[in-house]
Amino acid sequence: MALPHAALADSPFLLAARGQRADRVPVWFMRQAGRSLPEYRALRGSGSILDAIHNPAMAAEITLQPVRRYGVDAAIVFSDIVVPAAAIGFGVEVTPGVGPVVSQPFRSAADLNRLRPFEPEIDAPYVAETVRQAVNELGGTPLIGFAGAPFTVASYLIEGRPSRTYGLTKAMMHGDPDLWHELLDRLADMAIASLIAQVEAGASAIQLFDSWAGALSPDVYREFVLPASAKVLAALAVSDVPRIHFGVGTGELLSLMGEAGADVVGVDWRVPLDVARQRVPNHAVQGNLDPAVCLAPWEVVAERTRDVLRRNAGRPGHIFNLGHGVLPELDPGILQEVVDLVHSEGRTNG
Amino acid sequence: MALPHAALADSPFLLAARGQRADRVPVWFMRQAGRSLPEYRALRGSGSILDAIHNPAMAAEITLQPVRRYGVDAAIVFSDIVVPAAAIGFGVEVTPGVGPVVSQPFRSAADLNRLRPFEPEIDAPYVAETVRQAVNELGGTPLIGFAGAPFTVASYLIEGRPSRTYGLTKAMMHGDPDLWHELLDRLADMAIASLIAQVEAGASAIQLFDSWAGALSPDVYREFVLPASAKVLAALAVSDVPRIHFGVGTGELLSLMGEAGADVVGVDWRVPLDVARQRVPNHAVQGNLDPAVCLAPWEVVAERTRDVLRRNAGRPGHIFNLGHGVLPELDPGILQEVVDLVHSEGRTNG
Repeated sequence: MALPHAALADSPFLLAARGQRADRVPVWFMRQAGRSLPEYRALRGSGSILDAIHNPAMAAEITLQPVRRYGVDAAIVFSDIVVPAAAIGFGVEVTPGVGPVVSQPFRSAADLNRLRPFEPEIDAPYVAETVRQAVNELGGTPLIGFAGAPFTVASYLIEGRPSRTYGLTKAMMHGDPDLWHELLDRLADMAIASLIAQVEAGASAIQLFDSWAGALSPDVYREFVLPASAKVLAALAVSDVPRIHFGVGTGELLSLMGEAGADVVGVDWRVPLDVARQRVPNHAVQGNLDPAVCLAPWEVVAERTRDVLRRNAGRPGHIFNLGHGVLPELDPGILQEVVDLVHSEGRTNG
Repeated sequence: MALPHAALADSPFLLAARGQRADRVPVWFMRQAGRSLPEYRALRGSGSILDAIHNPAMAAEITLQPVRRYGVDAAIVFSDIVVPAAAIGFGVEVTPGVGPVVSQPFRSAADLNRLRPFEPEIDAPYVAETVRQAVNELGGTPLIGFAGAPFTVASYLIEGRPSRTYGLTKAMMHGDPDLWHELLDRLADMAIASLIAQVEAGASAIQLFDSWAGALSPDVYREFVLPASAKVLAALAVSDVPRIHFGVGTGELLSLMGEAGADVVGVDWRVPLDVARQRVPNHAVQGNLDPAVCLAPWEVVAERTRDVLRRNAGRPGHIFNLGHGVLPELDPGILQEVVDLVHSEGRTNG
């Protein structure tokens, strides 16, 4: 697939995502588009986040805001991992201060009837339209499309709301493995359809968010989660689009998340980046500044930012990012300083 | 200090905690006394958990319930890690379904005035009385006393309620390290006073709960958390009481948590036990069945229980436990089967 803009071929983000040397360390932030930005709050007002996502003009503008403000090396489409499930009518809302809430959670085989195939161009054409509008404006800055990984989406559908223990999810996984694998396979197909639509609309990289996979031990991950995620990542291998695979608290899972078919493995702040590099020696890495550290004074943030760069030690294939999403209460001025510091001090060895 | 009962010297739990060979693998469960037991719910009714803790007859009975029911190898005193802070009037409540809630969180140096020294015999004599009453009944079964580690207690006092990000805590740690260290030092002194009182009342082991330390990277843990926890554990080294040091999501911190002065390092389910053993080769370990797995059918729980035993491979110094607390919705019958399986199949090599 042709890149939507010639300058993308030399983009530091895409070079790093392919493990190649770039003339600077690229940086972007998970949730860079969102509540921490006053221009976002002004634009969105008090409506539902799903309403904003349904509005391509607004969603494209929100996608572009952090690129304009910070000069980050990639945009990420403003959307949500529950969009496909919501779009086929599973009954998902995103409640402010809580997160995704499902009115009738997935509890038995009968609920499979409520999970029909997701057809992006019919069910959620606004996402591709947002991608197209944003890509038109972005020029040489790559746009990242994304989807929720089957496990993490399943955890929302089963628990009905964010969980600390994933008790219902694990009970189903272990107690009814056939149903579990059928559910994850359907969610894999939804993620594939969603990601391919985003790539066809112009996204030049994708990220598969398995945010809560860190709740699992390696054995359980390998048996019950990896196959469905691998299916998603394999389906995206047909294009030349780098695939980022991310989760929180996944120190023990990094090599498996790489094996699942990622080009880039996301690393949260719990694992020092040099240690993470040892665990996925053949993958690019993305991370890993603690987002909560960014609430500290700039000198501290600067020191921790430099520590991340130092631990990567100039190896090609490092995308600087936070270890998880930007916190809503964060001062955007701090992120601006992080971008500038990474751009001025981040170096890749020849 | 003399053991309160001669049979304790041969208790499998205390032998394993000291890394010595025992004639069976000892087992107990974090939160074994509590909401999953119908006899607990019947006894406690709908009152506040702090009220139950203030009542030594009730708290001792709750402490004993799981020993009677399951035949576990240790009891743990029914109390809460916020008891010392609540007892000196910091304004902490434990809200059902939420956890510890602080009406006026700790936000500045002025709040240090609200953290006077904790005097167990004056401020919370009921804890030692509960220990004494329980130990009298327990005979040859050891009682574990416990305290919250300074970091985890600080996170509750600062955030005001359970947090997912620990943003305020990390902002204070990094932004005002002098205040942070002073706060942690005071909380260390509170933990020391509380633990020594429990040991003097007859507890024959202690556990320091740094439940949320896994939110930190190793560097940050070493600088901002380890010194205060080490102070607590060193103060307990005067007795012959084994010290267990536990947190969730601490895969990257296990060796540091051992270095802090523990005899036993608690391991959650995210790290396979054989891997954990490599990270703390000179310590006993405690764990590490996923509590959420216990919601699955018995065959699955049995397989995972055997997997933990297999990974320990008969090495002395393994206390079987869950990787975190018993979930309230758990069927106690499953835990009974876990105890019986560990007792019948768990072996320590000579």
